[in-house]
Amino acid sequence: MSIKTHSNITISTDISKELAILLKELKPDKVAILVDENTKKHCLPLLNVPFDVLISIKSGEGQKNIQMCMRIWSELTNAQFTRKSLLINLGGGVINDMGGFVASTYKRGITFINLPTTLLAQVDASLGGKTGINFDGLKNHIGFFQNPNKIIVYVDFLNTLPKKQLRSGFAEIIKHTLIRSEKQWKELQTYSFDSMKWVEIIHQSIAIKKEIVNLDPIEKGIRKILNYGHTIGHALEMYFLETPYPLLHGEAIALGMILENKIAKVKGMINQKEAQRIEKYIRTIFDFPKQLPTYKDLKKYLIQDKKNDADGFRFSLLTKEGACNYNVLVEESVLKKILK
Amino acid sequence: MSIKTHSNITISTDISKELAILLKELKPDKVAILVDENTKKHCLPLLNVPFDVLISIKSGEGQKNIQMCMRIWSELTNAQFTRKSLLINLGGGVINDMGGFVASTYKRGITFINLPTTLLAQVDASLGGKTGINFDGLKNHIGFFQNPNKIIVYVDFLNTLPKKQLRSGFAEIIKHTLIRSEKQWKELQTYSFDSMKWVEIIHQSIAIKKEIVNLDPIEKGIRKILNYGHTIGHALEMYFLETPYPLLHGEAIALGMILENKIAKVKGMINQKEAQRIEKYIRTIFDFPKQLPTYKDLKKYLIQDKKNDADGFRFSLLTKEGACNYNVLVEESVLKKILK
Repeated sequence: MSIKTHSNITISTDISKELAILLKELKPDKVAILVDENTKKHCLPLLNVPFDVLISIKSGEGQKNIQMCMRIWSELTNAQFTRKSLLINLGGGVINDMGGFVASTYKRGITFINLPTTLLAQVDASLGGKTGINFDGLKNHIGFFQNPNKIIVYVDFLNTLPKKQLRSGFAEIIKHTLIRSEKQWKELQTYSFDSMKWVEIIHQSIAIKKEIVNLDPIEKGIRKILNYGHTIGHALEMYFLETPYPLLHGEAIALGMILENKIAKVKGMINQKEAQRIEKYIRTIFDFPKQLPTYKDLKKYLIQDKKNDADGFRFSLLTKEGACNYNVLVEESVLKKILK
Repeated sequence: MSIKTHSNITISTDISKELAILLKELKPDKVAILVDENTKKHCLPLLNVPFDVLISIKSGEGQKNIQMCMRIWSELTNAQFTRKSLLINLGGGVINDMGGFVASTYKRGITFINLPTTLLAQVDASLGGKTGINFDGLKNHIGFFQNPNKIIVYVDFLNTLPKKQLRSGFAEIIKHTLIRSEKQWKELQTYSFDSMKWVEIIHQSIAIKKEIVNLDPIEKGIRKILNYGHTIGHALEMYFLETPYPLLHGEAIALGMILENKIAKVKGMINQKEAQRIEKYIRTIFDFPKQLPTYKDLKKYLIQDKKNDADGFRFSLLTKEGACNYNVLVEESVLKKILK
């Protein structure tokens, strides 16, 4: 079975067949697969695809940097990859974001395809054409927009994931419903986490993301609502990356959503009852650190947020369950009040 | 006076006025200017433009690398540049290529404008949307296509150039006529180098480049003819960069054109008389090193040329004065014969 949700996304139950068709069409002169130690062990054996080079990196957000790009560029160079070669990104957000950046800049761009292996990447990171790496301790600070030739979502990869990773991806599913669909948000709350209908939920979540990305591909306006939870979330993620207890992306975003709702509450945008219901639901899924950083700790990350302008901090904040505003100016005093 | 030759190129005799109009239109929240020690000294004083940050790098092809990009990204970060900020590239090919790459990847892309200060950049490097840096000793190995918001060609900058630099840029003017216009090639030979009508010649040369780029913006086909002289030229440039006697880009390209004509001659594509006339003319303008590298010396650069595919070396070669073929397969035996 394969469902086409968008020109370049296919949700497939037979990934090897999809890949065989694609390779026949693309006719690359060489193929490299980018993996980390987890996808090498658990996902690569599920693929039946010929390749010339396997590029294996360590897993984790800390690897998504320019030094690693340089290593991958060199490996492609040494293997004499040409402009007609192909890079397959087999992994989560780190592999998809960085692999996309490396491929799109190698010899001014070679074809790449994303095979997202985490729930997070399947519903979010691998879609929408964002490529990038962290730089100077700032999340996705360097990168640009470039769509992969194809994204194949193979739901069976989820069976290879630790539950913690599954939860992390689920944060983006929660986010998609909260910014865009009250109906799906209500539905989501009727399932227990262990009895999710993943195929259906992934399908709906991809549909929301694609709708928004298509309305605004390079994030001039409405696409910014996808950043709900991410302004504080990214800051938390980068802050904890420098501690012995890094957060997974989705964990940081889940906590970011709770804290950003508090901002929306202070600004009179969302009512108390809805904010509390969201917080309660999120806390049934996630455990958060007891000790949170203050505004002073997070300031250096917050001032570099890509949505900011000369007037100050700009947030995407909920107005109610299922609706989100963007470009909302948030005063430093409000942040100091929430992050203390 | 200002002549618009293409949507984003203006040839102007009043650059400060052009910039004032542009800044009023773009309304950037911050402005940085990227210069090298030469353009800082000779060109920056000719501009009347307010800016927040001056980023100054050492001049030369050896600076066009990822470490320098990292330095510039950090300078923009430290100055809290946002997505609404602007980078002005004031310099030759190195500044325009690398500045374009840095700007297009900073926070997934900020606006940049190119003010080419060398003849080379005015007729070639700053046009056509190629951004990039050298990597692993390979010319423009990393980069992608991104057009600047605007290119302002200010011919008076040429008065600041050493004659050697003027000659270097002239190589691309010769190339443009040879690949596309027998008429202009004939005309060119009627002027002495010291009595060139620069404004007219630059205008014609830009027109040829833009015509070809517009036919094929991302170099899938005919745009490859702009690479005439560059396959061997780039290899020579990178080879000599590692010696105490680096060649200027145009010097390498001029020598590349002579040597590639010899290949075209061996392959029966161009006749002896035309190849000799071209060589003779080029040698009246340029002095070349006595001792040239062999095929063995250049092989590592040649095999990485972006035009190559699994079948082997692909060249863009003249069929006559004013016409050029591309994707021409050249056997290693021919290269060994020419480069000995």
